[in-house]
Amino acid sequence: MKAGTGHVVGMLMAAAGGIVTGLVEAADALPSWNEGAAKGAIFQFVDRTTRAGSPDFVPPDERVAVFDNDGTLWAEQPLYVQLQFVIDRVRALAPRHPEWRTLEPFASILKGDVRAALAGGERALAELAMATHAGTTSEEFETIVSDWIATAKHPVTGRPYTEMVYRPMLELLAYLRAHGFKTYIVSGGGIEFMRPWSARIYGVPPEQVIGSSIKTRFELREGRPVLVRLPELNFIDEGPGKPVGIQTHVGRRPLAAFGNSDGDLQMLEWTAAGPGPRFCLYVHHTDAAREWAYDRTSSIGRLDKGLDEAKTRGWTVVDMKTDWKRVFEFESR
Amino acid sequence: MKAGTGHVVGMLMAAAGGIVTGLVEAADALPSWNEGAAKGAIFQFVDRTTRAGSPDFVPPDERVAVFDNDGTLWAEQPLYVQLQFVIDRVRALAPRHPEWRTLEPFASILKGDVRAALAGGERALAELAMATHAGTTSEEFETIVSDWIATAKHPVTGRPYTEMVYRPMLELLAYLRAHGFKTYIVSGGGIEFMRPWSARIYGVPPEQVIGSSIKTRFELREGRPVLVRLPELNFIDEGPGKPVGIQTHVGRRPLAAFGNSDGDLQMLEWTAAGPGPRFCLYVHHTDAAREWAYDRTSSIGRLDKGLDEAKTRGWTVVDMKTDWKRVFEFESR
Repeated sequence: MKAGTGHVVGMLMAAAGGIVTGLVEAADALPSWNEGAAKGAIFQFVDRTTRAGSPDFVPPDERVAVFDNDGTLWAEQPLYVQLQFVIDRVRALAPRHPEWRTLEPFASILKGDVRAALAGGERALAELAMATHAGTTSEEFETIVSDWIATAKHPVTGRPYTEMVYRPMLELLAYLRAHGFKTYIVSGGGIEFMRPWSARIYGVPPEQVIGSSIKTRFELREGRPVLVRLPELNFIDEGPGKPVGIQTHVGRRPLAAFGNSDGDLQMLEWTAAGPGPRFCLYVHHTDAAREWAYDRTSSIGRLDKGLDEAKTRGWTVVDMKTDWKRVFEFESR
Repeated sequence: MKAGTGHVVGMLMAAAGGIVTGLVEAADALPSWNEGAAKGAIFQFVDRTTRAGSPDFVPPDERVAVFDNDGTLWAEQPLYVQLQFVIDRVRALAPRHPEWRTLEPFASILKGDVRAALAGGERALAELAMATHAGTTSEEFETIVSDWIATAKHPVTGRPYTEMVYRPMLELLAYLRAHGFKTYIVSGGGIEFMRPWSARIYGVPPEQVIGSSIKTRFELREGRPVLVRLPELNFIDEGPGKPVGIQTHVGRRPLAAFGNSDGDLQMLEWTAAGPGPRFCLYVHHTDAAREWAYDRTSSIGRLDKGLDEAKTRGWTVVDMKTDWKRVFEFESR
């Protein structure tokens, strides 16, 4: 990966929400995408469903597009960003939890052996997140996340995590919104971990963020109402949980779904099964130079069954290496 | 209650979404409200938070208004509408459940003794709803609800339930939306019971409906993905559950909250506790002639603690008898 000087411009654009206007007015709404089957399929689908007079025209209210986050909108290697957050929280909270020195998965994290802590899979990750995320109010947690995301740096690039987002996907989000789509994030990650920054970085407001959660309880503390985050799992928005999360939050079947792993497969299947035109896209991580190359055997973001299914069903598969002109905003042009 | 001939016009207006345009262009955006403290407080709050240059100006993104449904947007007497639906479902399903003849609360309902079935309170109601609502897919359930609401009639007025909505509240919803507010329903009723008709009747799309729910599970049936509704409670969106539901679905604290019972109290408290201007309103059922009169001792929609709290905190209390020029669209003018 090469670091460039374009990131200040990128941050300003994203912060000002200027991407929408800028891209839509441009001749090419997806300038970071190379010409090819993926880009063509996107343009074709949007034209087909939004052009007045099209036989497959879909009313704006029903234009729902759902996006996985980790590995689809931002990098998930070498570790999920939220796991990096968990690691930092475990370290910050360790003095208050002497028992963590011998208790897994905390002990492994404190020893710096994150792979060992990760061995328990998605659910262990959720449990770990829960243990480090509970015990605060919802407002306190928002502050903790906001403070962390403002300062934490990616371990390989040294960039803020919010710069590890894929420029082509930001363009795609903006392009869909400009055509009346409501864009949702549907992530296995924590809903309250994404909400503090999703509007600024992705243009996706908190009410359009769907994710995993722990339970919360309403309490009056000295007469002041608070929502207390409890150390109890509420919902895992992963795999078969994603269609459930979408139904709970949106109450409509998506028109288009974007993912990068087998954890997104049911979301894509659910989307594809609706009547009329539907669009399903997998981001395939094929670029070891600019990002990472991984799929069928990766412990993070495994794409195995999904890759076969995409082929069988004719879903669009983005080859990051050939389909994306630029991956990150900070790359030199 | 008097029945009139205006309901066709009302239905057409609601169906076409014409209310928004119609009301905003009118000199008085709330024509069914008598001049008085309640109407004045609403106008004042909206002006204060939405007028450019106002020191209390709130950006459109943060203008969230939450509305209870039963007793706030439509009539909940003599029984909650969803309970009427449950009764009809119990009768329809009874041939398949011979055990219900002796099993409470089903037995009481089959005998026509709804009050006895209702004795178990909100939670019993939710359990009953769950038992009659589970076992279908989400799509099948949507069809069942849509078919029912299209034909079922209110036991006292003989009107479709969708005509039992309060005209002044429809005006208020439209008025707030015309001023950039996003309007949400936050009901103790079932989320999937309201979504099939909320857009048509209230102008509130499915993704802005929050309610109680049972668990659902993603399944492939002969290769076709479905969401199966399980006989297991997922979430009760009532009392202290309402702020939790709002945080889950919206991720922002409301600017304004509207309710009619003690079950809305925590939602109003949570709203009021935010920084800057907030607006809390209780609809007080005081009109036995045009609607029903009930508050502190009612088993349905009890308003006791909330009425005291409203007085202490200076919340707006709507006296239906004096504040509302017209309650239902179908009343003769």
